[in-house]
Amino acid sequence: DLLSHGQYETVYNFLSLVIASQLFTAVFLLVSLPRILPRYRQAITVAIIVCGIAAYHYFRIFDSFKAAFVTTSVGGTGDYTQAVGQGFNEGYRYVDWLLTVPLLLVELVAVLALARSVQSRLLARLVPAAALMIALGYPGEISGDNGIRGLFGLLSTIPFVYILYVLFVQLGKSLDKQPAGVRKTLSRLRFLLLLSWGVYPVAYLLPLLNISGSDAWVYKQVGYSVADILAKAVYALIIFHVARIKSFDDD
Amino acid sequence: DLLSHGQYETVYNFLSLVIASQLFTAVFLLVSLPRILPRYRQAITVAIIVCGIAAYHYFRIFDSFKAAFVTTSVGGTGDYTQAVGQGFNEGYRYVDWLLTVPLLLVELVAVLALARSVQSRLLARLVPAAALMIALGYPGEISGDNGIRGLFGLLSTIPFVYILYVLFVQLGKSLDKQPAGVRKTLSRLRFLLLLSWGVYPVAYLLPLLNISGSDAWVYKQVGYSVADILAKAVYALIIFHVARIKSFDDD
Ligand SMILES: CC1=C(/C=C/C(C)=C/C=C/C(C)=C/C=O)C(C)(C)CCC1
Ligand SMILES: CC1=C(/C=C/C(C)=C/C=C/C(C)=C/C=O)C(C)(C)CCC1
Repeated sequence: DLLSHGQYETVYNFLSLVIASQLFTAVFLLVSLPRILPRYRQAITVAIIVCGIAAYHYFRIFDSFKAAFVTTSVGGTGDYTQAVGQGFNEGYRYVDWLLTVPLLLVELVAVLALARSVQSRLLARLVPAAALMIALGYPGEISGDNGIRGLFGLLSTIPFVYILYVLFVQLGKSLDKQPAGVRKTLSRLRFLLLLSWGVYPVAYLLPLLNISGSDAWVYKQVGYSVADILAKAVYALIIFHVARIKSFDDD
Repeated sequence: DLLSHGQYETVYNFLSLVIASQLFTAVFLLVSLPRILPRYRQAITVAIIVCGIAAYHYFRIFDSFKAAFVTTSVGGTGDYTQAVGQGFNEGYRYVDWLLTVPLLLVELVAVLALARSVQSRLLARLVPAAALMIALGYPGEISGDNGIRGLFGLLSTIPFVYILYVLFVQLGKSLDKQPAGVRKTLSRLRFLLLLSWGVYPVAYLLPLLNISGSDAWVYKQVGYSVADILAKAVYALIIFHVARIKSFDDD
């Protein structure tokens, strides 16, 4: 495929934005960790790891992108073509998600500080479903065939819907037991989760729509990038905010 | 465009100066954090993150500059021309500002330690306006067309003026409630902010004036670099000073 200079710069700068967002959210949380009560440090520690894993993978994705698209124009202002002997590795995203999506659910359950047995019961459902969702999406993502992409997208949607069901119905019940100061923030957090997680299947579907090839690919990269910032960095900052308020309340 | 050896060295060394200033302001604040009362640590933590993000982006900008301009002269003393297949990515600055400008406002509001509701009200106005200002500037910056540059520069000035209005009029009221020992420093801080933030639109306009091409570009890079040192590193040190004095007063 061919990318115009504008398309190349758009993907380039969005990938760069994600690196900085994840890396410095992780640093911020690391520096702020002592200001959180020990009870909520597990949630923040997991958030640091999630953002750290993402920063690492985006460094890789960025390098992969730069190696995969090249130009012979002076000042790099012309069209970019695919390099000889190097491709863009979309697999980094799936490796990242396979690790981070279960951890995001751990983070959420940890900040609620529910009874131990309730926590384990929730995670025993959410974590395998999350891993299954990502694993089923991968064969569709790397396949050039739209039929296979659609089929695995559909299969992956089953655990996706199940996760949303658990989060909204099961977890909804325990929201009433949260302190009043954070109840609204927590319920907003679920909507951020729905909104940001919802971007992934939409971005995944783009190549199936009749958008001309490289546009669909650029939108998909931008979509995944923005969703990753919302689902990891912004999400982590809200979790941090909840943990801070609960730390005050408990003090 | 062509850069003379002197122009190349000027930009090179200013970029290098910014890296050192931001990186070591961040390190200084990190080491000094425990000497600040917990109440003001949020402001200093945000300052650390801002300088860290800037240091990271200046490493990138520096590398991008070195890759984008090349010479075939012995000892590098000749003219520098644009490289084949690589351009200078001005986008790093906008990615940086998109993250740091809202954070600089968070930093300022945090060190004032106002009531929670006043803080949220101020930030709910300042942060979106700051993000909008930067996002509107970007299309003008990357466009080669002076008309588009002027148009987006004008649009971006609307949220800019609004931010200054909120800072000077709204925030002015709460200055009276600050301890006497820091009132003068805080009001000076607002002038540093006005002075340093004012450099950006001026540097942005340079290519519109009739300065010959590469001179305007060099002045723009120097202007953005100096302004970044004032608006982030010097600003952070003044915030640190305010936090230290307040820490004594509250003790
Ligand atoms: C439903 C569905 C998908 C869902 C992906 C999701 C929901 C990913 C979430 C990722 C997060 C939250 C990452 C980072 O933080 C796939 C795999 C694209 C395949 C198509 C169907
Ligand atoms: C008004 C205006 C601008 C203002 C930029 C400003 C005010 C940037 C501030 C950056 C800071 C404070 C950075 C680092 O710390 C632009 C976007 C150049 C576009 C032209 C119009």
